[in-house]
Amino acid sequence: MLKQVLLLLITFLNVELDKKTMELMPPKGTRDFPPEIKILRDEIFRKIVSIFERYGFVPIETPVVERWDILKGKYGEEAESRLIWRFKLPYSEKEYALRYDLTVPLARFFARFNPKLPFKRYQIGRVYRYENPQKGRYREFYQCDADILGAEEPFPDIEIIDMMSEVFDEFKIPKYLIKLNDRRVLNDIFEKRLGIKNADIMLKIFRSVDKLDKIGKSGVLAELEKMGLPKDKIEYISKILETSEYANKEVLEFLERFSGEGVEKGRKLLENILDYSKVKNSVKIDLSLVRGLDYYTGMIFEIVVEKPRIGSLSGGGRYDNLIGMFINKQIPAVGGTVGVERLIEAGIENGIFKIKECAIADAGVIALSDSAMKYALKVAHSLRKNGVNTYMIYRPTSPVKGIKHLEKRKIKYAVLIGEEEVKEKTFTLQNLETRERDKYKLSEIVKATNKILS
Amino acid sequence: MLKQVLLLLITFLNVELDKKTMELMPPKGTRDFPPEIKILRDEIFRKIVSIFERYGFVPIETPVVERWDILKGKYGEEAESRLIWRFKLPYSEKEYALRYDLTVPLARFFARFNPKLPFKRYQIGRVYRYENPQKGRYREFYQCDADILGAEEPFPDIEIIDMMSEVFDEFKIPKYLIKLNDRRVLNDIFEKRLGIKNADIMLKIFRSVDKLDKIGKSGVLAELEKMGLPKDKIEYISKILETSEYANKEVLEFLERFSGEGVEKGRKLLENILDYSKVKNSVKIDLSLVRGLDYYTGMIFEIVVEKPRIGSLSGGGRYDNLIGMFINKQIPAVGGTVGVERLIEAGIENGIFKIKECAIADAGVIALSDSAMKYALKVAHSLRKNGVNTYMIYRPTSPVKGIKHLEKRKIKYAVLIGEEEVKEKTFTLQNLETRERDKYKLSEIVKATNKILS
Repeated sequence: MLKQVLLLLITFLNVELDKKTMELMPPKGTRDFPPEIKILRDEIFRKIVSIFERYGFVPIETPVVERWDILKGKYGEEAESRLIWRFKLPYSEKEYALRYDLTVPLARFFARFNPKLPFKRYQIGRVYRYENPQKGRYREFYQCDADILGAEEPFPDIEIIDMMSEVFDEFKIPKYLIKLNDRRVLNDIFEKRLGIKNADIMLKIFRSVDKLDKIGKSGVLAELEKMGLPKDKIEYISKILETSEYANKEVLEFLERFSGEGVEKGRKLLENILDYSKVKNSVKIDLSLVRGLDYYTGMIFEIVVEKPRIGSLSGGGRYDNLIGMFINKQIPAVGGTVGVERLIEAGIENGIFKIKECAIADAGVIALSDSAMKYALKVAHSLRKNGVNTYMIYRPTSPVKGIKHLEKRKIKYAVLIGEEEVKEKTFTLQNLETRERDKYKLSEIVKATNKILS
Repeated sequence: MLKQVLLLLITFLNVELDKKTMELMPPKGTRDFPPEIKILRDEIFRKIVSIFERYGFVPIETPVVERWDILKGKYGEEAESRLIWRFKLPYSEKEYALRYDLTVPLARFFARFNPKLPFKRYQIGRVYRYENPQKGRYREFYQCDADILGAEEPFPDIEIIDMMSEVFDEFKIPKYLIKLNDRRVLNDIFEKRLGIKNADIMLKIFRSVDKLDKIGKSGVLAELEKMGLPKDKIEYISKILETSEYANKEVLEFLERFSGEGVEKGRKLLENILDYSKVKNSVKIDLSLVRGLDYYTGMIFEIVVEKPRIGSLSGGGRYDNLIGMFINKQIPAVGGTVGVERLIEAGIENGIFKIKECAIADAGVIALSDSAMKYALKVAHSLRKNGVNTYMIYRPTSPVKGIKHLEKRKIKYAVLIGEEEVKEKTFTLQNLETRERDKYKLSEIVKATNKILS
């Protein structure tokens, strides 16, 4: 247990260690995954993939390295000035960058291959941000995206929400809340009702409102006051923030007061989601939900895990102006992402995921003498042929030592081969938990296999 | 078919295209994988992983980005001066590099984590080399390694050979040959019999001999002459090259003439492999096999596919002086790699692998009217719950249009939902190949699932 906690610390936090160990660390903000964590991560990714495929999404892959001119100008000033891994090699004048997300590469891919629409793709891969590493934040980390290109609301939007919620069901996370909003509603209210025409000021207000969970209503209002917003407008925003306490029906009623195409379209969509989504009971309309990224154009959502109190583990929305950027055409798009690094970390901390020590092998074969080695190898091959992951001890040894060797690796079954077994063409199978032993004929390998894999 | 060939060309060769398309390409030597190729690649990797795990290997992962000082000095002059992707970011004085292989990172990992021995790990991941891209050679490509650390010959060596051969069995590649040699044999013969003490000259001779397959015996001898090697030595090397025509037994007899610890140990190992390996009938001892990398210290092998004539698709050997480099300790190690990029390319060209068009979804649901949409979603969710990958058409449409939509995506089953089905709580399942239609009650979903997945 102590070892596991240490491993976690080492792996996740890159804690300061003695100099010798520091020299062996990967670059700051990147991680090595030892088998027990790699096995867990692979299993989690596999499960997410199987849900994406259950919904008919297909995988693509793009390189980790992109040309700098493809990423340039796409992520805003802060990213370009200090977050994007961009570089030249000593041998070339070409400018490269490590991908910053999977979305701009998707836009490039889309323009290049012009796939049939709707194009439903998922992609899981490493992305790079030169941030200051801290818990849950790395310089190299995985993103896990599913997007639907070329299809308009509401059903693709509903599908994304339904599918993302299934990820949480799959991991048996009991209490999650799907926070839902629509950017058009926000835009309309702020623009038409409050008369805020300047897009930059609007974004600033959005970002402030987005902090409601962190700094509370009074905090948000204080920030707006600092921005110099007039009192009546602040009061109005205060009213909007209050609706996050309302039931969904009441929020929709509140929205009926507003006219304007944006509010109406947004309200209609929210109604549709409440009507058609299979997880409507977990959905909460929250007009204070903004999501940081500026490119959303319609529905936005976040999935928040309340118990254990982990925070937002998934999010996404509709972004109709991004995917067509390389072909100067509007391509409707909606997508979601699983915050897989946080999911894994929070999941381990909260006991949702258990780290198993390298138990890839189901059985281990022990030869008790030199002359038993050849027949032991034969038994090992037979087991493998029948689907048993089989570990072979490379030297003849005693049962006691051999079993100790296997136990250290958390292997559950020992297959003992001595002179007797060689002569009889048998093998002795020992369950290392119950200590129960049985002898099988080599011809009974299927029976033994069933026991081992049961 | 034409589309597939084009796709292959585009994906694998980065052929020159018109300017607009060029602007959408990933960096030279890197590749986008559209769904049909990504699905195939994932399947191939999955199969390789399952074989590695069948032998009890466990996975690890290390970052794509390493610190330059970790890679520095490990790959020789050519790599350092023009092949390693090394760089600084604009925001930092730190020197980074993209990993050049998975072996030096393994050595770092080993020193950092000090795992229980023997440590049997596999790793599949991207590596980076700034080469001139050509068919089968990329700047970003995958390596696929399995290594055993901390265990001495012969059984780990035998296991690696047995396991690698199983990869070829798995892909039903009918005729492959495992070429086998031992570096100690070569060293001893060249050093003791031919009196070549200078390691650089020895390596030069090795590299020349290594070209036997490409330039023939006369070509090799001509190269050795050019190097200024005396006639008697060349004649002797000629004799050694001749043994590549010998049967294994004769090669071993030929080696009995030599004394010296290296030859003896090597010969004994080769005998052991012939004795214990389950693929001994596919093994051919070949004293002209050298393998490019200079770090091997014992057994070396290459697996060559003869029919179709694809060349070497796997290789490896024992390298006892590399893994301990960060802890100044000798750690015995043996490993092998699957040349997975060549395997995939050659396999597609030769019909061993078939590219399937995005057939992730098993069934597609078509709602025939607005009012059928909600029930259609319900049916889709039920199918998914029962393990059917289900594609949903986002808009009500006619059976003809809906079926066309699904056929374009190579989906085999249509699930049709009209007013009648809504009323009856049924669904109509149509096999799009046979055109056969059946109606099922929603409560018979398991029966329908079995049909779809059969």
